[in-house]
Amino acid sequence: MAGTDHTKIPSEGGPAIVLVEPQLGENIGASARAMANFGLDDLRLVSPRDGWPNDYAYKAASGADWVIDNAKVFDTTEAAVADLHYVYAATARPRDMVKPVISPEQAGADMRARAAENLNVGILFGRERAGLNNDQIALADTIVIAPVNPAFASLNLGQAVLLLGYEWFKPGARTLGDGTRQDGPCDEPGLKMPGTRPATKQELVGFYEHLESELDQSGFLKPVEKRPAMVRSIRNMFQRTQPTEQDVRTLRGIVSSLVRVHQRNKPKT
Amino acid sequence: MAGTDHTKIPSEGGPAIVLVEPQLGENIGASARAMANFGLDDLRLVSPRDGWPNDYAYKAASGADWVIDNAKVFDTTEAAVADLHYVYAATARPRDMVKPVISPEQAGADMRARAAENLNVGILFGRERAGLNNDQIALADTIVIAPVNPAFASLNLGQAVLLLGYEWFKPGARTLGDGTRQDGPCDEPGLKMPGTRPATKQELVGFYEHLESELDQSGFLKPVEKRPAMVRSIRNMFQRTQPTEQDVRTLRGIVSSLVRVHQRNKPKT
Repeated sequence: MAGTDHTKIPSEGGPAIVLVEPQLGENIGASARAMANFGLDDLRLVSPRDGWPNDYAYKAASGADWVIDNAKVFDTTEAAVADLHYVYAATARPRDMVKPVISPEQAGADMRARAAENLNVGILFGRERAGLNNDQIALADTIVIAPVNPAFASLNLGQAVLLLGYEWFKPGARTLGDGTRQDGPCDEPGLKMPGTRPATKQELVGFYEHLESELDQSGFLKPVEKRPAMVRSIRNMFQRTQPTEQDVRTLRGIVSSLVRVHQRNKPKT
Repeated sequence: MAGTDHTKIPSEGGPAIVLVEPQLGENIGASARAMANFGLDDLRLVSPRDGWPNDYAYKAASGADWVIDNAKVFDTTEAAVADLHYVYAATARPRDMVKPVISPEQAGADMRARAAENLNVGILFGRERAGLNNDQIALADTIVIAPVNPAFASLNLGQAVLLLGYEWFKPGARTLGDGTRQDGPCDEPGLKMPGTRPATKQELVGFYEHLESELDQSGFLKPVEKRPAMVRSIRNMFQRTQPTEQDVRTLRGIVSSLVRVHQRNKPKT
């Protein structure tokens, strides 16, 4: 969150840009440059292939050095999104997952609305060729797909970041400096959560791990070769509740309580 | 206007992309790639510095070869726009010229409206560093400026073409070939549910009752005067998942499995 004052201002509440396993420094740099174009400065890298820092990234950033300087490196996608309340996954095509799919424009409006409520938002971008895998997408609340020519759909990493940054920054519905908001094209996407706040991804992953460990013990996640798909499907399902922090506590309470059912009911021996 | 049939279709009526005195083949290639992403194929080059054809342009086009193959070269900007009815000038900042200034989004809508009237439209992009000069801008009807962070406003050529192509192609208001319109940006994005169907309320209530009966046994829903509010809050939470029929079966499986955890783990007595 450093940088000179004048570069910092427009980024207020802007999405974290999470590059998952990026391969080329050039692409990281192009992403940083695109972020700077639209006032973003929270760059997060999950296991960059060629290590970090990376000279090629600085070169390709064309002067957006403060974004590169501030980049944070994480070992896992889970860790990279831990403090975020709402996560978007940028993908080239829909996946076989039950998750809302929106356009960059809708994502822009959605992010502005959430940022206005002081929620931390972020966007996951996958590896250059392969994109995000299903486990990574399962961490996201919503999938974002840019409308492109189906016959030539490949957007490179920097271009994908550019489009999302552009839609975030677009003045059409952006929060103005004086705290007022212009009318947005798609206002009111989200869930109203009176008196509570959305769970952070860390809280949510904590619940997943709790549930999965109990389900491992109970034998539900067998056979072992099906476990990853089952875990993904369960995580996706709970993800869709957009759980509040209170919901996560309730869910953990439910799991703890259920595993005690038979313990309690057992006659004392 | 050549190219394979499937790449040609979306470009119907799309703007000509006119690069005025482009310097680097890489930037011409990146522009061609961005054009292909958004179904454009009418690339026009005014006095490219390094001559034409240019190997670097092919490389950077990443497969959008038909756009490069079809590029037309002109000696003057006047000649390049001769057959166009309406011309936009992409610039980084307003000039001292009395000319309408619009955003890429407005330009997208404007171009679609004109194309629907069978008018030929095109966009001028200037040299990498200097941009368009005043004489070139004077050929345009309207100036287009992308909203960017004023502290870091430099968009490169390929990125500028990308944003304009994106706004042209955006389905929000695009008329499809058959005269129908795709859904607008604010139309219910909705959940994709591949290979399954939403749960009926009956299935959902069946799950609720199953869960609640186990939670009654485990003592979670106590004290009794709080039970109605707790049940409501739990039901609301699962309701928000918009569960599929398969999700409901998974949830019931999870509950059944969890209540067996300690039963299974208990040493035989």
